[in-house]
Amino acid sequence: MDLATLIGLIGALITVAVAIFMGGSAGVFVNGPSLTIVLVGTILVTMIKFSLGQFLGAAKIAVKAFMSKPLDPASLIATSVELAKTARQSGILALEDAEVPDEFMKQGIGMLIDGHDPEVVRNMLQKDVSLTVQRHIEGQNIFKAIGDVGPAMGMIGTLIGLVQMLSSMDDPKQIGPAMAVALLTTLYGAVLANMIALPVADKLALRSTEEKRTKNLIIDALMGIQDGQNPRVIASTLETYLPKSQRSPEDD
Amino acid sequence: MDLATLIGLIGALITVAVAIFMGGSAGVFVNGPSLTIVLVGTILVTMIKFSLGQFLGAAKIAVKAFMSKPLDPASLIATSVELAKTARQSGILALEDAEVPDEFMKQGIGMLIDGHDPEVVRNMLQKDVSLTVQRHIEGQNIFKAIGDVGPAMGMIGTLIGLVQMLSSMDDPKQIGPAMAVALLTTLYGAVLANMIALPVADKLALRSTEEKRTKNLIIDALMGIQDGQNPRVIASTLETYLPKSQRSPEDD
Amino acid sequence: MDLATLIGLIGALITVAVAIFMGGSAGVFVNGPSLTIVLVGTILVTMIKFSLGQFLGAAKIAVKAFMSKPLDPASLIATSVELAKTARQSGILALEDAEVPDEFMKQGIGMLIDGHDPEVVRNMLQKDVSLTVQRHIEGQNIFKAIGDVGPAMGMIGTLIGLVQMLSSMDDPKQIGPAMAVALLTTLYGAVLANMIALPVADKLALRSTEEKRTKNLIIDALMGIQDGQNPRVIASTLETYLPKSQRSPEDD
Amino acid sequence: MDLATLIGLIGALITVAVAIFMGGSAGVFVNGPSLTIVLVGTILVTMIKFSLGQFLGAAKIAVKAFMSKPLDPASLIATSVELAKTARQSGILALEDAEVPDEFMKQGIGMLIDGHDPEVVRNMLQKDVSLTVQRHIEGQNIFKAIGDVGPAMGMIGTLIGLVQMLSSMDDPKQIGPAMAVALLTTLYGAVLANMIALPVADKLALRSTEEKRTKNLIIDALMGIQDGQNPRVIASTLETYLPKSQRSPEDD
Amino acid sequence: MDLATLIGLIGALITVAVAIFMGGSAGVFVNGPSLTIVLVGTILVTMIKFSLGQFLGAAKIAVKAFMSKPLDPASLIATSVELAKTARQSGILALEDAEVPDEFMKQGIGMLIDGHDPEVVRNMLQKDVSLTVQRHIEGQNIFKAIGDVGPAMGMIGTLIGLVQMLSSMDDPKQIGPAMAVALLTTLYGAVLANMIALPVADKLALRSTEEKRTKNLIIDALMGIQDGQNPRVIASTLETYLPKSQRSPEDD
Repeated sequence: MDLATLIGLIGALITVAVAIFMGGSAGVFVNGPSLTIVLVGTILVTMIKFSLGQFLGAAKIAVKAFMSKPLDPASLIATSVELAKTARQSGILALEDAEVPDEFMKQGIGMLIDGHDPEVVRNMLQKDVSLTVQRHIEGQNIFKAIGDVGPAMGMIGTLIGLVQMLSSMDDPKQIGPAMAVALLTTLYGAVLANMIALPVADKLALRSTEEKRTKNLIIDALMGIQDGQNPRVIASTLETYLPKSQRSPEDD
Repeated sequence: MDLATLIGLIGALITVAVAIFMGGSAGVFVNGPSLTIVLVGTILVTMIKFSLGQFLGAAKIAVKAFMSKPLDPASLIATSVELAKTARQSGILALEDAEVPDEFMKQGIGMLIDGHDPEVVRNMLQKDVSLTVQRHIEGQNIFKAIGDVGPAMGMIGTLIGLVQMLSSMDDPKQIGPAMAVALLTTLYGAVLANMIALPVADKLALRSTEEKRTKNLIIDALMGIQDGQNPRVIASTLETYLPKSQRSPEDD
Repeated sequence: MDLATLIGLIGALITVAVAIFMGGSAGVFVNGPSLTIVLVGTILVTMIKFSLGQFLGAAKIAVKAFMSKPLDPASLIATSVELAKTARQSGILALEDAEVPDEFMKQGIGMLIDGHDPEVVRNMLQKDVSLTVQRHIEGQNIFKAIGDVGPAMGMIGTLIGLVQMLSSMDDPKQIGPAMAVALLTTLYGAVLANMIALPVADKLALRSTEEKRTKNLIIDALMGIQDGQNPRVIASTLETYLPKSQRSPEDD
Repeated sequence: MDLATLIGLIGALITVAVAIFMGGSAGVFVNGPSLTIVLVGTILVTMIKFSLGQFLGAAKIAVKAFMSKPLDPASLIATSVELAKTARQSGILALEDAEVPDEFMKQGIGMLIDGHDPEVVRNMLQKDVSLTVQRHIEGQNIFKAIGDVGPAMGMIGTLIGLVQMLSSMDDPKQIGPAMAVALLTTLYGAVLANMIALPVADKLALRSTEEKRTKNLIIDALMGIQDGQNPRVIASTLETYLPKSQRSPEDD
Repeated sequence: MDLATLIGLIGALITVAVAIFMGGSAGVFVNGPSLTIVLVGTILVTMIKFSLGQFLGAAKIAVKAFMSKPLDPASLIATSVELAKTARQSGILALEDAEVPDEFMKQGIGMLIDGHDPEVVRNMLQKDVSLTVQRHIEGQNIFKAIGDVGPAMGMIGTLIGLVQMLSSMDDPKQIGPAMAVALLTTLYGAVLANMIALPVADKLALRSTEEKRTKNLIIDALMGIQDGQNPRVIASTLETYLPKSQRSPEDD
């Protein structure tokens, strides 16, 4: 599980809760109808925008993204160099029994062993990458949609509350509390969008970028291996994927 | 009919209606002139932006998009593999009598049977795809325009109401109800844009993306068939269009 | 003249006028200084952004775009097929006397008759298209600029009015009317931008897209004619520019 | 000097000034601390975003852009045709003594005379164009930054004023004037951004586009001259850079 | 250290502080819970969006970017010309002992000396550039995220304060100060975003652009050197990276 996301999500909600409890009357912040308008309304409007399957799949995509540990590029490079050495010494068929930590890499090696043309392998793997990215974008888009619709439903709720309050303004003493209730939907919408939906969408986008980069690294590695390149050349090519501080020191 | 859209659209409007009725005086939420400014005004301003034909065609495009069931990629892949087997055994002319579930695919096969050059066929089909997408975008743009103009007309209506109220503020007791009426146009505009027009535009965009992906799958399938590729290779190429969980298990 | 634009523009302004007159005191909606700030201010600020020539030319571009009837793609295709038949039977020089309904097409045919290389002709025509589009974009940009500046000047006017009102708040009875006047500039800016300038800019963009598509159709037609392609092939290539419902039925 | 910009800038500021003076108490619109927050604050925050050199250079870029008269494409075409005639009759070396009105064109001719390969010359000139455009974009970005930061500082100033006013609301009579002062910073920010900084940024962008188009015209001309093309062909190629009304009539 | 950024950042904060102190009651601008909601809340929500490592690395990236002095293009060009002369006279191996002021350039020269193919060297260096830019963008994105989240948390804090105030409006005298406190979070969010986070993000973007341009200059220089081009040609090619005023005068 991604630690920063967990700490951030829970910590931020606690911060807001503390601010509410310090103000004394926490009870006024809970209002059934306001919650219904924002939560149920946002879910229903978001459903208009997507198919039922996509909508139900969004949570699954999110959970998977947060749970799956991204592969460490440095260890992938080490693995690639090992594979390249094996392939150079004993031929590409020797990779059949190699231990490969990643499903995508294993699939690519299988294709090389089967003797497919390198260009064909590269195209097929790249198509896989770009279609995977498209599916990730769908997942993000559902959270982005929640982040758009939440504040809109909050505003609609506040407008309804204001119209109700203004059209029957008999007792001036009631204006305050009525307006407090009207503002609640705006608050709910802002919290839902800015503290939950949009950050999760951004996190998914980041994960998607990382996965894309890792898979591009693997494709580069496979092409180098297939080409019979010197393992040291492969290592230094792949190390451009690392920040400078993590690269192995130049030793020539 | 797309179920999620139907449930979402009706459910969201019911949610808002319930919130209004729970507040007691539902009557204050209906105001003829306010409705006129927002609805008629939005339709007229949107008409400025498009030609009469496009404007009238927008509803048709929307209905068609919601009604037409998108082809299932998995079944399309199965069909393609069958066609590839037939073509490999009996030649491409044998596809003449094959049962093809999709108009676009049938058209492409017809062109291959007629002996056109594969490159020509690919270009013509891709041009068809990109021009279809352009027409879909026009449909979306009309709903996006309604989503832009609605809140603007709502704001204009509210400003008119405020000026009228402020310029003749004789009886302080009347301020409340007058302002409630002024706010109504903003509420109408927000509902029209955020709960109807923009979600429908997003749904149309999603449909367009799906259709484009399906047609690209078909083009890839046709090129593989024409090329006489091994049906198993075609299948595994096309399966990159599916999410990993739906792909056939590797069996080699 | 484009009917939808005319109906939309006049109809929308009438809708707003009716809403104002129904409120009783239409006189309060006319205020000389407020109109000056928004109209004169917007024109002057827009002038900063463009050269004098472009600014004066914008109205001309708009009028021309609304007046000029766009060529019907279907009739252009018919013409192209006729020309292709003539060229096939009697050679490309026979097109010299052909009746061509469009200036751009005539120019292209002239170049083909003159014996220029097809690639040269295509490049020259495409450069013409892209430079025409650039000039159209300039026209749109002036209306978009008015749509940006109008509300900004409206807000500046309202801020000036508010500061004047607040700094001399002697008679509470005057606050209402003074604030009504202050809000007028915001109203003017919103009407100018949302009901006139931005819709016209969008309409110009649509016209530009249509013209670009028509000219691309013509270029495709000319290349096919020059290439001596079968008129039926040309027809079916060009028909991808039409929505499916307008294409000629497949007859093989 | 660019007339439209000068008229627009001064005229718009006068329009606002007149609106202020007509309201009677112009003195309330001048407030030292408010001016300081918006002007000094905006300049300092903008400085964070750029290096000292760029920041000081922005004014220079702006002045130069407004002062330099853009070359008239029509006269450039005429010059190019003259040069092409000379080169055709007496060889490209004869251009050494030709009078060339533009520095960039002179540089390109010099390279052709020196016998560089046309492709090399084209690449070098195009690199020059794209790096010039990059430098122009930096100039625009500084004005865009001022246009972003100005309203933000205005809002910060107004928030500070409101907090000060609300936290010490002893005399209700003082609320009006105090709020007027608080709103002043918002007004300053809006004027600075919408009437000065953003229009100037847009104007610089327009100038940059024009310069790019003119330089592309020159590159096309030089390539044609080097290629020994017929001057009439060069003229008709270059005339695609002109709007239709300015092109020379077809005379064949 | 970048002087403009330091002066701008400190100067802008002082300007705001002065405005606050001039208003008299500076104490009302410090409020523990409000600061907590905006600062702690913003940090926690930003953490949701990034991994722990990236989040902690952001400050490091920023400090490094502000501290590292960008290489002066003019001196880089001089160095390149020197290297080109050496390489022309004594062969490319003679560069082994040359003094190279830049790590990236040294790496490229090393690869040329090792006898790698120029295309391979160019590709590897360009991959390095584009991956470096990607890492810089991550750093910017964290500051941009703070600039997005700050005002959102400010608004959430203000909504919480307003609901608390409105729901218990017993003593009208308390409304003012309570609302002042509610507005404080909006002020904090605006200052954090507009005066710190967004300007720093923009500065990092600018640095990234400069570094990219410098590295492209180096790649161009290395290719010219490897190609054995005339040092004068290399100089004039590279000088297109400089503004016109800094180029060496044409001397032919």
